[in-house]
Amino acid sequence: MKIGYLAPAGSFSEEATLSRFSDVAPYSSFELVDVLARGEIEAAVLPVENSIEGPVNWVLDLLSRNHMPFSISAEIVWTVKQNLIGLGRISDIQTVYSIPQALGQCRGFLDKIGVETRDTDSTSAAVRLVAERKDQKIAAIGSKRAAEIYGLPIITEDISDARNNKTRFIVLGKERAGTTGRDKTSLIFGFTMEEANRSGALSNVMVIFAALDISMTMVVSRPTGDALGNYIFFVDIEGHRQDGKVRVALEAIAAKTSFLRVLGSYPKAKE
Amino acid sequence: MKIGYLAPAGSFSEEATLSRFSDVAPYSSFELVDVLARGEIEAAVLPVENSIEGPVNWVLDLLSRNHMPFSISAEIVWTVKQNLIGLGRISDIQTVYSIPQALGQCRGFLDKIGVETRDTDSTSAAVRLVAERKDQKIAAIGSKRAAEIYGLPIITEDISDARNNKTRFIVLGKERAGTTGRDKTSLIFGFTMEEANRSGALSNVMVIFAALDISMTMVVSRPTGDALGNYIFFVDIEGHRQDGKVRVALEAIAAKTSFLRVLGSYPKAKE
Repeated sequence: MKIGYLAPAGSFSEEATLSRFSDVAPYSSFELVDVLARGEIEAAVLPVENSIEGPVNWVLDLLSRNHMPFSISAEIVWTVKQNLIGLGRISDIQTVYSIPQALGQCRGFLDKIGVETRDTDSTSAAVRLVAERKDQKIAAIGSKRAAEIYGLPIITEDISDARNNKTRFIVLGKERAGTTGRDKTSLIFGFTMEEANRSGALSNVMVIFAALDISMTMVVSRPTGDALGNYIFFVDIEGHRQDGKVRVALEAIAAKTSFLRVLGSYPKAKE
Repeated sequence: MKIGYLAPAGSFSEEATLSRFSDVAPYSSFELVDVLARGEIEAAVLPVENSIEGPVNWVLDLLSRNHMPFSISAEIVWTVKQNLIGLGRISDIQTVYSIPQALGQCRGFLDKIGVETRDTDSTSAAVRLVAERKDQKIAAIGSKRAAEIYGLPIITEDISDARNNKTRFIVLGKERAGTTGRDKTSLIFGFTMEEANRSGALSNVMVIFAALDISMTMVVSRPTGDALGNYIFFVDIEGHRQDGKVRVALEAIAAKTSFLRVLGSYPKAKE
């Protein structure tokens, strides 16, 4: 069965998904969870965190929905490499198309070659536009995969000023991953408004990790939407939920929070 | 001297700023800190957190810049009330203009009255458009202040589905606020990559607040941009930096982090 990723084709989401799976298909953010729930895809690959932009809020909000019947069974850490794509030579190019984010990340390079920039809705849309116009004076910034799809040459590889631009994706589905000895566990937890206002609600949880010597690899807070200052916490820790130490921690945390949900235990990606 | 707020005029930022100051002027997000640095305004009012949308990332990133010579001297908690603004009666209206966020927050009301919606760049731009067209078949969703500026009547007040839509603003400038006995302190701190990877780096800080019985009212993490999983933490605690307990906490935290900066101590807003 297919693995779904975030549309459009040619996105960095597709690149990351193809690094792990071969039968893949693009879906909009709205469709992804629906087709997963209907069993039309086996799993969905979703971006959760980027080293420059930070957490992907709509994905976190999706994960914290009530009655989310899926688990995280894997993570993919993908190095985002922006490329200059087009039919011309560098000296021909007058205008470069891409999303504002990508143009911003390649500002140093673009200033050096002295071009105008124009915004598009996605990096793939920029590459498609250049493919359709067949104009040597324009180029796009996008993924290798997009260049491949639209049959365009890469003029210059890896033009981003930002080194270390990595996105972490999760694989969400019905599958649960077993222990490998090098695992991570993703949790969400929260407090009642009364607890949250009391001193030390979050500290009481943090201290459990410290006491058990469990490393946290991500800590992100998102508003519950109920009231200013009330948060849901997304925490990734090292270890599998079946590991003794993690089991002890989860029991202790459950006693200190108003809700606790394990989103999944899965092998840690090699970065 | 003037107090700067986030343009355009008629925004909820202007409403919040006018609730505290009378001589105010709008600036773009890019200009605000520049005019503050040049001494053209006395202070800037900036949104930091909304009860529905969460933290305002560009403001947090601005606060964590190196060499940020300003302090937070006050906070303003403003209840965001969306209003239907226009010249027609409800039954006349066919199209409603506003930003996607505001249209989303008023979806229940809009579906009930059965209208089409169109996006604008700001709520004020929507109100201005309705004022300029003088068409009774269109209306805008925006602030009371925008209706006032553009001389339009409010058709229906407070039409948002979301109750409790509050935004917290900070007042940033050269002034430092003294103790009032009911204060808050905003901090940012971080770890070297090595420390962050070690178990319990964040817990070691949290446990200080717990030990000293200091309440945290906000905890938000933002990526440092260096590497996946390395964060800067924004924490608001109860108490003034001159209070004994907070001073002890700050000293203890400084010893456990690679950097610690106090953004300011200021009176807690009445919500």
